[in-house]
Amino acid sequence: MTDLDLETRLSDDDHQALKLWLRLLSCTTRVEDHIRQRLRQEFGTTLPRFDLLAQLERHPDGLTMRELSKRLMVTGGNVTGITDQLEAEGLVQRETRAEDRRSFIVRLTPQGRRQFKRMAATHEGWIVELFAGWTPAQKTQVHDLLALLKTHLKDST
Amino acid sequence: MTDLDLETRLSDDDHQALKLWLRLLSCTTRVEDHIRQRLRQEFGTTLPRFDLLAQLERHPDGLTMRELSKRLMVTGGNVTGITDQLEAEGLVQRETRAEDRRSFIVRLTPQGRRQFKRMAATHEGWIVELFAGWTPAQKTQVHDLLALLKTHLKDST
Repeated sequence: MTDLDLETRLSDDDHQALKLWLRLLSCTTRVEDHIRQRLRQEFGTTLPRFDLLAQLERHPDGLTMRELSKRLMVTGGNVTGITDQLEAEGLVQRETRAEDRRSFIVRLTPQGRRQFKRMAATHEGWIVELFAGWTPAQKTQVHDLLALLKTHLKDST
Repeated sequence: MTDLDLETRLSDDDHQALKLWLRLLSCTTRVEDHIRQRLRQEFGTTLPRFDLLAQLERHPDGLTMRELSKRLMVTGGNVTGITDQLEAEGLVQRETRAEDRRSFIVRLTPQGRRQFKRMAATHEGWIVELFAGWTPAQKTQVHDLLALLKTHLKDST
């Protein structure tokens, strides 16, 4: 193999990664946009609000603001501002922590939990529709491949 | 097959789509966060600025503000505000269109093109690193699977 071959091979591989990333980003963005639009139309809410409620639903013992910020997967939301709004609407509550009275945790109220569950069921239906382009076997394949990527990303970022 | 079997199967499949989406979103977010951080550290710039320059680089004849907004893949950027900044820095320029003097197109200046090319080469290196968790064959596999998803998303959104 000549140096030129190696260079060509490397350059093709580089390009492959970039194309793959752009395609991945464009699919993710398209799904996100669709979900944003339907959340607005059907529930008058936003993706950062939905995402914040989803994180709290997964953590019944509540999360600190710091943990909440780290876990949010979508951008565009100001965690403190959204928490204030959701608290004013009675969907979440702040509680002082026993072990450190200067900090507090946020958790869902029973009303917040009920409202989130209703939205989540509908949201799951949208996701099923959007990913119906893949057979169950293909979904499993992508899920497994993403596990490999995730491990690599954890090690390298 | 009983109704119950069918229901169980459907519910498993629903869950599969949701898990897959959350994993896809978490990988995309992790890559994006990493790129945001490195763009800031190494070039003192943001992802929406980089993305806007990238779109213009792919369209040498320029884009209207409307086309530009539609093509941007990352959120968090105010297209007009970013364009103003980049114009003030001499990286892009606005031009009145011959066919419609009320609207204008935005394009890269020669300096903008040079600066973008330098950043893009470094950016591509980061992407290659981040996706090194997949072999070239696995990258091809995901790329092909994403093509199927993309077609389905275009039809259903």
